[in-house]
Amino acid sequence: MNTNWNFPTTIWFGAGRIIDLPLSCQKSGIKKPLLVTDNGLVKLDVFEEVKRILREANIDFTTYSSVQGNPTEANVLKGVLHYNKNRHDGVIAFGGGSALDAAKAIAFMSGQSRSLWDFEDVGDNWARAEIDGIAPIIAIPTTAGTGSEVGRASVILDKRSQTKKIIFHPKMLPGTVIVDPELTLGLPPHITAWTGVDAMVHAIEAYIAPGYHPMAEGIAIEAIRIISKYLPKAFNNGTDVQARGQMLVAASMGATAFQKGLGSVHSIAHQLGAIYNKEHGLLNAILLPYALKQNQSAIEEKMVYLSKVLELKKQGTDAIIEYILQLRKELNIPHTLKEIGINDDEAERIGKMAFKDPSTPSNAKPLNEDDLEKLFKAAVNGELNIL
Amino acid sequence: MNTNWNFPTTIWFGAGRIIDLPLSCQKSGIKKPLLVTDNGLVKLDVFEEVKRILREANIDFTTYSSVQGNPTEANVLKGVLHYNKNRHDGVIAFGGGSALDAAKAIAFMSGQSRSLWDFEDVGDNWARAEIDGIAPIIAIPTTAGTGSEVGRASVILDKRSQTKKIIFHPKMLPGTVIVDPELTLGLPPHITAWTGVDAMVHAIEAYIAPGYHPMAEGIAIEAIRIISKYLPKAFNNGTDVQARGQMLVAASMGATAFQKGLGSVHSIAHQLGAIYNKEHGLLNAILLPYALKQNQSAIEEKMVYLSKVLELKKQGTDAIIEYILQLRKELNIPHTLKEIGINDDEAERIGKMAFKDPSTPSNAKPLNEDDLEKLFKAAVNGELNIL
Ligand SMILES: [Zn+2]
Ligand SMILES: [Zn+2]
Repeated sequence: MNTNWNFPTTIWFGAGRIIDLPLSCQKSGIKKPLLVTDNGLVKLDVFEEVKRILREANIDFTTYSSVQGNPTEANVLKGVLHYNKNRHDGVIAFGGGSALDAAKAIAFMSGQSRSLWDFEDVGDNWARAEIDGIAPIIAIPTTAGTGSEVGRASVILDKRSQTKKIIFHPKMLPGTVIVDPELTLGLPPHITAWTGVDAMVHAIEAYIAPGYHPMAEGIAIEAIRIISKYLPKAFNNGTDVQARGQMLVAASMGATAFQKGLGSVHSIAHQLGAIYNKEHGLLNAILLPYALKQNQSAIEEKMVYLSKVLELKKQGTDAIIEYILQLRKELNIPHTLKEIGINDDEAERIGKMAFKDPSTPSNAKPLNEDDLEKLFKAAVNGELNIL
Repeated sequence: MNTNWNFPTTIWFGAGRIIDLPLSCQKSGIKKPLLVTDNGLVKLDVFEEVKRILREANIDFTTYSSVQGNPTEANVLKGVLHYNKNRHDGVIAFGGGSALDAAKAIAFMSGQSRSLWDFEDVGDNWARAEIDGIAPIIAIPTTAGTGSEVGRASVILDKRSQTKKIIFHPKMLPGTVIVDPELTLGLPPHITAWTGVDAMVHAIEAYIAPGYHPMAEGIAIEAIRIISKYLPKAFNNGTDVQARGQMLVAASMGATAFQKGLGSVHSIAHQLGAIYNKEHGLLNAILLPYALKQNQSAIEEKMVYLSKVLELKKQGTDAIIEYILQLRKELNIPHTLKEIGINDDEAERIGKMAFKDPSTPSNAKPLNEDDLEKLFKAAVNGELNIL
């Protein structure tokens, strides 16, 4: 069943919908797209299929796939060079969060005369950009997690400072998104689990962020409900097209909702991703229950409501934490950071860095450096009750 | 507390926020706005206040207020003439649904060379429009109901055929919306009630429409929850700024959600509005429980969930109907169309016309002309159980 939506951007949903990629190029006015993906996906059948569809429609394109997990400035700038050398007029972003973020940054930087970090999401740096220098973007997510396909930002690793930086511009929002669950059928269970919990964390952190944004909250609550229902199904049976489709949509909802803000889970996960090069979703999944416990006094009322939405037997923050612990077990996600090789030697530094993360100010409860250090240590050592 | 949102369009929310209207003109590139409102509002203090704000910012504007409830083609075309004669470069739409719809249509038609009805929302008629001929729009709602401020369409009365027609274009979505609860403090209770239930009907019909659009559903559910909480407060105490603000936001959420579709309540209300010139919200409020009853077999599961969201004691369609009846009583809304002077003499014709209404195909349950005639008759005579 194909459907088209118009917010937050144009979304074409449907199993097998990738077939409409040439039509999408036409509607976006793209005649010579640069097809961007990551260095893993480039080898898979699903990517061959995309190339075949473009070739059969006689669309002239080239491929850029030098994108790694937690993409770097170099990944972006090399892509920009490739884009301009081959005189492209648009970008097709194909892949998971890393590929989409890199591709969006390439489209953005393709016509800029400043350096990438000049556009870091601080103040109104974004207003420095030359709008006509931003290439049109078609995004095609192949994981159900970051929701980068409906976002106006990219997270890029600054290797010198070992920090992830957010590059923001309203025009980095892809003009069209093709959401095709068939593209995700081959995702291995652990990736399904990690990215799926990442989507859930987006929705939960957005929901409990203190701002007033009822539309984002409505989207967040429904995303959490959908993920709780379909993530276990997608994990246990990767070829369940319905579950895959629901997860993709829920991931885009999570990302739409977090316009309202994220929180401490992301504040810390961003640092650990940069320092230890661990998967973003896995880090989030481990951190989530500890962060909820630390936020308990600020979120109890919302957690009561969420418990009703999820039809839990008990109600409140502890009930939600219990539910998350159970879900994590079902998804084979460890309980502590220690189990994935992260110890607390760098706790102080991580607390300090996390405090400066753009997600920290929108955490449900105001947190200082010490609080974040404490949260990190608790997640390393599995101490859910000391917070 | 002021907040800005970016979807479905740029929304500036906050009590007293109307003060930012000059800034909004500047951001939209409007130097000489046409200020459009209806023939009732033009006499009120709140409108004087808007004019004062524009004058103090030295913004050159003129006013057009020949807009009646259920606005007509003539209301629009006279406004277009006024717009072009005075060489305006944008429209400020100020008022309830009628004023906003008329103002949006004026902005749209200001640079078109075809007639208004050529853009009726059928097929892709909208693609006929000259995009550069559509003036930028700033919308300022003064009722919490239609949500026209976040919509891409206007409902205009075609007097010859006595039907309401929908004029649609993606660019009729206002670029900025100023949502200021203080502007609605003076709304009399009966208008608060009627427009508020209209917003609720938007959310309910969108939620139960059969399409797949989880983001719209999440928004719809949260809108219903907010309205159930704040409509009685706004009705009982018109100066409750918080309740007024929540109702305004919920109304814009209802309208955002009904991108998914409306249903039989609107199919019939559109006809009755055109024939009997009755208020849209009042008609919807009377029709709603009958329509839910007729849809019962198709919506039971969703009504069970909605009952939980609203924390009702019982669960299901009958529980929701009981809740609506109670709410209507609290809001002094009559139970039958007969009580507002509509009898069923024209039932057959109304059934036939309602069947052709654009809301009918998205009704929860497929309905034919007879079903709609039956629904109308039941609402005239108060027969909730014959359906
Ligand atoms: Zn994330
Ligand atoms: Zn309505």
